[in-house]
Amino acid sequence: MEFSARMIAGLVGGTIVGNPETKVDNFAKIEEGRPGCISFLYNDKYEDYIYITQSSIVLVNNDFVPKQEIQTTLIQVADARLAVAKLMQAYESMKPRRKGISDLAFIDPTAKIGKDCYIGPFAAIAEGVEIGDGCILHPHVTVGSNTKVGKGTEIYSNAVVYHDCKIGERCILHAGCVIGADGFGFQPNADKTGYDKIPQIGTVVVEDDVEIGANTCIDRAMMGATVIGQDVKLDNLVQIGHNNEIGAHTVMSAQVGIAGTTKVGEWCMFGGQVGIAGQCTIADNTMAGAQSGIPNTVKKPGLQLMGSPAIEPRRWWKAQAVIKQLPEIWNEFNNMKKEIDSLKKELKELKKQHD
Amino acid sequence: MEFSARMIAGLVGGTIVGNPETKVDNFAKIEEGRPGCISFLYNDKYEDYIYITQSSIVLVNNDFVPKQEIQTTLIQVADARLAVAKLMQAYESMKPRRKGISDLAFIDPTAKIGKDCYIGPFAAIAEGVEIGDGCILHPHVTVGSNTKVGKGTEIYSNAVVYHDCKIGERCILHAGCVIGADGFGFQPNADKTGYDKIPQIGTVVVEDDVEIGANTCIDRAMMGATVIGQDVKLDNLVQIGHNNEIGAHTVMSAQVGIAGTTKVGEWCMFGGQVGIAGQCTIADNTMAGAQSGIPNTVKKPGLQLMGSPAIEPRRWWKAQAVIKQLPEIWNEFNNMKKEIDSLKKELKELKKQHD
Amino acid sequence: MEFSARMIAGLVGGTIVGNPETKVDNFAKIEEGRPGCISFLYNDKYEDYIYITQSSIVLVNNDFVPKQEIQTTLIQVADARLAVAKLMQAYESMKPRRKGISDLAFIDPTAKIGKDCYIGPFAAIAEGVEIGDGCILHPHVTVGSNTKVGKGTEIYSNAVVYHDCKIGERCILHAGCVIGADGFGFQPNADKTGYDKIPQIGTVVVEDDVEIGANTCIDRAMMGATVIGQDVKLDNLVQIGHNNEIGAHTVMSAQVGIAGTTKVGEWCMFGGQVGIAGQCTIADNTMAGAQSGIPNTVKKPGLQLMGSPAIEPRRWWKAQAVIKQLPEIWNEFNNMKKEIDSLKKELKELKKQHD
Repeated sequence: MEFSARMIAGLVGGTIVGNPETKVDNFAKIEEGRPGCISFLYNDKYEDYIYITQSSIVLVNNDFVPKQEIQTTLIQVADARLAVAKLMQAYESMKPRRKGISDLAFIDPTAKIGKDCYIGPFAAIAEGVEIGDGCILHPHVTVGSNTKVGKGTEIYSNAVVYHDCKIGERCILHAGCVIGADGFGFQPNADKTGYDKIPQIGTVVVEDDVEIGANTCIDRAMMGATVIGQDVKLDNLVQIGHNNEIGAHTVMSAQVGIAGTTKVGEWCMFGGQVGIAGQCTIADNTMAGAQSGIPNTVKKPGLQLMGSPAIEPRRWWKAQAVIKQLPEIWNEFNNMKKEIDSLKKELKELKKQHD
Repeated sequence: MEFSARMIAGLVGGTIVGNPETKVDNFAKIEEGRPGCISFLYNDKYEDYIYITQSSIVLVNNDFVPKQEIQTTLIQVADARLAVAKLMQAYESMKPRRKGISDLAFIDPTAKIGKDCYIGPFAAIAEGVEIGDGCILHPHVTVGSNTKVGKGTEIYSNAVVYHDCKIGERCILHAGCVIGADGFGFQPNADKTGYDKIPQIGTVVVEDDVEIGANTCIDRAMMGATVIGQDVKLDNLVQIGHNNEIGAHTVMSAQVGIAGTTKVGEWCMFGGQVGIAGQCTIADNTMAGAQSGIPNTVKKPGLQLMGSPAIEPRRWWKAQAVIKQLPEIWNEFNNMKKEIDSLKKELKELKKQHD
Repeated sequence: MEFSARMIAGLVGGTIVGNPETKVDNFAKIEEGRPGCISFLYNDKYEDYIYITQSSIVLVNNDFVPKQEIQTTLIQVADARLAVAKLMQAYESMKPRRKGISDLAFIDPTAKIGKDCYIGPFAAIAEGVEIGDGCILHPHVTVGSNTKVGKGTEIYSNAVVYHDCKIGERCILHAGCVIGADGFGFQPNADKTGYDKIPQIGTVVVEDDVEIGANTCIDRAMMGATVIGQDVKLDNLVQIGHNNEIGAHTVMSAQVGIAGTTKVGEWCMFGGQVGIAGQCTIADNTMAGAQSGIPNTVKKPGLQLMGSPAIEPRRWWKAQAVIKQLPEIWNEFNNMKKEIDSLKKELKELKKQHD
């Protein structure tokens, strides 16, 4: 499908500089531009490419002032980043949405499947499951007994949702994620010869508009529910322990791990490989840098944190700068000790002479 | 199914305070109590809830002395934590255990399946496999050729056990775990233009009563076997490298990684995201705090460790407290240098005057 | 199948010391030697075993000089490590390679399958897919629409390759890995009430001879392609963010995470749990120790790095040695301050007396 600069400018509310009939049918990064593609420029670092790109159209911010002649057709917008996302969403939404239920899927007779769903080959839908209208379940999705999936949710291949869980509307679950496996609970048995399993009889509730990355794990609660709030975004390989509650709009990068029974606030952002201890409360809008470790409750909202144990980032960076020099500081430190000792001696001597 | 306080007190060896005919049919956390539920109190932090909970029965420790009137029926026991686990186990064990082999499973004709097994849709059981009595293989489980699975083991959806492995009795393998993928072994090829794969012709042995978390990986040995000892508990997303041997009763939290050819003792406990180097030996009862890194052998049993490289926890926490102040200490340090210099000068002056 | 010492010596270019007709049919570690097995010795640490091993043949380096009598037949070679890998490869290559397409696989009629492929039960091959000659797709592999897989590639169970990706020749994809899930891209929506998804319309290109570990995730690009260079080796549970480009021959241990739009050079080696920030460039031959964190671009090739933020390893180890003593240093530091103060006082006094 082809689109003219005129159509695109209309869609994103932009102004055309160049030929409004220029046509494109795909996207390309500005540095990999090709005829028939639309690119964008919102990072000054890439400005040089706009003068040589082969792309037919480039989206730019209104305040962009070219330093040389530009061959390509421009569309000026208030925010090129937002405009390109809007365009890409439009492009994605035009792809035909899969529908129909594969003969090769297993659907228990007691399961209820909504209208206009796609259920791929080898999907396994257990007894009592309810799948909302317009859901897409790719091949090999497994949904355990009595789990409910809200309208318009898409679940990629090999994702597994255990029994009795609840997935909201318009969620995206990527391949291989596991929702509702047992929380990690054991206690020494009576004669201390091994561990007894503490049954995990709770569940997982994933609210609406949540995206869950590939191979991410969200454990079911011991009792009650592990809750993933509305609009939460989890990257790949994240671990959410049992009985956690993650507040709405919180975003976690890949390989973050949250131990059990921790309550994370809304609008938090955690970098990759962050770890948070169990039984903590993390206030709203907490930002934790990559690889940081939070061992305790964070009461004040809006803190930025870095390091393990995590502290204020500027302090952390300064401390790290000192740490880097510790070998030299250590030498100086020992010299200082000697100097103090010799000062003491000299002073003593002097005093003696004086007396 | 309903249970009276009298029946429950009998099961856990408790004393009833209140109406022995009070009936419950489910569990609830004390702070989320509902009529018809049993709750428990073993953490003082939650004591306030016992005076207002809607739950019909609450399990408490014998030594619990109420500070106000309590409406709900109490059952007093020696250890409420143990009693509730016992009850939950009883509750879980009353759920009907799945049985029967799905027509939609693939079972190679040479595979042997024990009595009273459940094998779900799309399970794939390769040639020469032996599955013990009473095993539960959920939909999409894959068991590679000649692998043996012991009696009463439960394997959740999408778990993959490669060929020639051995899984013990009463194990639980959670969704997406991978047992027996190739160990990570490569060496530069003869002309140093790339890597040659070192074939991993060994296997994995998982002993009895082991629980393996979702998406956890246990690599097969180069030669011989990677061994997971009896009663070991691994959380989600754990990495066990090739030729590791993990001692009985050792517990690892999520996202722990152990490089290859390391021998971990019995009764160890590792917090989340701990890393342990290859070719090490870790003594029995070693406890490593979350995110710690162990670069070398730990010879002495029973050590507690923290940080990376890991040291004794109290020392680590004290060092971290100093690190936090390093920016200020750095300033003071430089002031001290100046002061020493000026002391030296003054002293020299004084001496000169004196002479 | 049995092999004589004579045949093996011929294969690896070795010299026999002992009986050239000694026969073996399997491998064993020297410390677990059994009759009928071949073992190897290339680590002095294991030398004691060569005098007592039950193995029938042992491969040793030419420069090995026994300190006592040896019962077993030796084969001397220039490099025992290379020779054993060569032998194991020969052993592996003699195993019959699986062929044939299971009736229980789903293959879209528009997909093209090469010659001599194996496609296991419940594999799901979508429309427009092309699978090269001699590929092995184990049970439950999912290949999304229009993805191309090169000749001789092996994909293990439950691996998922999303749509429109390209996998090279002779690659090995281990169980549960996910190639081509959406990159992690969101931006606050116009009225700041939540996040908009930035569609990820790019793809993943995996070049030839790449090995990808179990449950490892490689995200598709926002635009363009995430590229995994030729001969790259990724261990288990690794995270490769969107738009990363990983240079040829780079090796990453388990649980490494690379944030988005980072370019990693050739021949790099990253230890377990390393994290690298987004939008960086890492020079060729960079070596990063386990658990290190690289927050910025590394311009100079061949650097070794350690710690988080990563610095030169010797400096890091020295700094860590000082950190370990910080509690004592802190005490001394405060004593020094006091001593300087009392020195100042004494000096002042002395001066006064002097005046």
